[in-house]
Amino acid sequence: MLTPALGRELVLTKDLLAEGVHYLADDPPDTVAAKLFAVNLSDLAAMGARPVGALLGLGMGPRCDRAWLEPFTAGLRAAAGRFACPLLGGDTIGGLERTVLSLTALGDVPPGAALSRGGGRPGDELWVSGAIGDAALGLALLRGGVALPDPAHAERVVAAYRTPEPRIALGLALRGVATAAMDVSDGLLLDAARLAEASGCAVEIALSAVPVSRAAEAAGTLRLELAAGGDDYELLFAASPHSRTAIERIGRRLKLRLTHIGSLRAGAGLSVLNADGRDVTPARLGFEHRG
Amino acid sequence: MLTPALGRELVLTKDLLAEGVHYLADDPPDTVAAKLFAVNLSDLAAMGARPVGALLGLGMGPRCDRAWLEPFTAGLRAAAGRFACPLLGGDTIGGLERTVLSLTALGDVPPGAALSRGGGRPGDELWVSGAIGDAALGLALLRGGVALPDPAHAERVVAAYRTPEPRIALGLALRGVATAAMDVSDGLLLDAARLAEASGCAVEIALSAVPVSRAAEAAGTLRLELAAGGDDYELLFAASPHSRTAIERIGRRLKLRLTHIGSLRAGAGLSVLNADGRDVTPARLGFEHRG
Repeated sequence: MLTPALGRELVLTKDLLAEGVHYLADDPPDTVAAKLFAVNLSDLAAMGARPVGALLGLGMGPRCDRAWLEPFTAGLRAAAGRFACPLLGGDTIGGLERTVLSLTALGDVPPGAALSRGGGRPGDELWVSGAIGDAALGLALLRGGVALPDPAHAERVVAAYRTPEPRIALGLALRGVATAAMDVSDGLLLDAARLAEASGCAVEIALSAVPVSRAAEAAGTLRLELAAGGDDYELLFAASPHSRTAIERIGRRLKLRLTHIGSLRAGAGLSVLNADGRDVTPARLGFEHRG
Repeated sequence: MLTPALGRELVLTKDLLAEGVHYLADDPPDTVAAKLFAVNLSDLAAMGARPVGALLGLGMGPRCDRAWLEPFTAGLRAAAGRFACPLLGGDTIGGLERTVLSLTALGDVPPGAALSRGGGRPGDELWVSGAIGDAALGLALLRGGVALPDPAHAERVVAAYRTPEPRIALGLALRGVATAAMDVSDGLLLDAARLAEASGCAVEIALSAVPVSRAAEAAGTLRLELAAGGDDYELLFAASPHSRTAIERIGRRLKLRLTHIGSLRAGAGLSVLNADGRDVTPARLGFEHRG
């Protein structure tokens, strides 16, 4: 039972995670719980919403035994506490071939204050939080596709994959500042193209400006590949050039890197430019239709 | 985006359905959509809530192709319209061995008016809507476990299994009348035991009073078996004997059979009595932990 705060609008988000598709079967169960919260709360963050509560759907596969459920449940409790987003109920079923997790998260916003991906205008600057590509690198590392000799780097990229940080405080701070926002889940380039399309604009991204971590630099992965990675759960947002000071202030206050990576223009489509101004837009932008 | 009605409380419910577990792989897709709505709205009905909206989680298995999705989507639209419960969003993933459906439904109630299963008191009468056991018979029929020579009977029990009717209007009418309510999903006896336990009472059920359909009578299935069936999605509720006239009036207004089947007593546990007053409580009450 929820008594909505007077005069606030509710926003809702629902994301499914399947074992072996969105997380690895041997990911620690508490990190799976944290990721389940994070991907949903990341959606709320992108709307500028404050988390209110969540419902869990747990479809149990054969690996979902007591040894898995105990740390998973502890992870849920920890995430619910950390994000002030209590579990309000849910449903559990068995009989599946693999575990399927569903979370519905509720958030609230003052009337008219919710951010959407469709409010960008030509001339707006495009920004992104954090560093891009670490999660995709983490997944590649866990699958044995890349090596990172420095254990601190390895730990960082694995954590980015398993326990992304939903940018809730940033989403709240961007209300009234950003003209459009969304979270980066399917790759920066693909999601930037979506934000631009929803805003009826073209978008230009300066590849050299895309923020990457030291771990990603050490891995030597091409920046273009990092920008087409996925699972970043950073916020991508557009704002008027007049808001630059406000955005820089928000970044300092939240101790969060916020990087101006491009701009919206009149027209349609995505262009990725290298440092020489050459168009290096790849054919594959991200995980389209990966579900 | 939802603007909650001023001064109302929100209730939330989430149910998962898996192909081959909660519905049959060859059930018509539009009926699967109707059932997905019905099982969730049945939960709202049991709380006396009015549906407000729903979110869909669709985890696609190999049978979830275009030929399946088209009638399924049409069924979702039809159910959303019929129950005034618009689809507000959701998520779709692929890569599963079987289709898994998740619906989160939101409802609202005036403050303090929500029904729960825990409000029953010793002396309350126990009531149930509709007829019990048809859905379990329908499932048995579809699996070839029983035969029903009369096609009208067969159609009735299959419809009870595939497209149960959530008792929304009844739930609304029972606000302020019932002391406790829940929906019958895992078998009348098991769910009655749960309502009694939540209310801190014992419960006694007169087996001969349990309402069954002509189809069930024709099938010759034991009443005790029907009462331990499941998937009924009828409302089970407790009310003071003083409310009997009010309840009968509600039944007439809604053209819905409402049957007094037993009572709550001081103590704990479930007793099923036959017409001679002999205790015939079965060992297996219903689908415990079936998920």
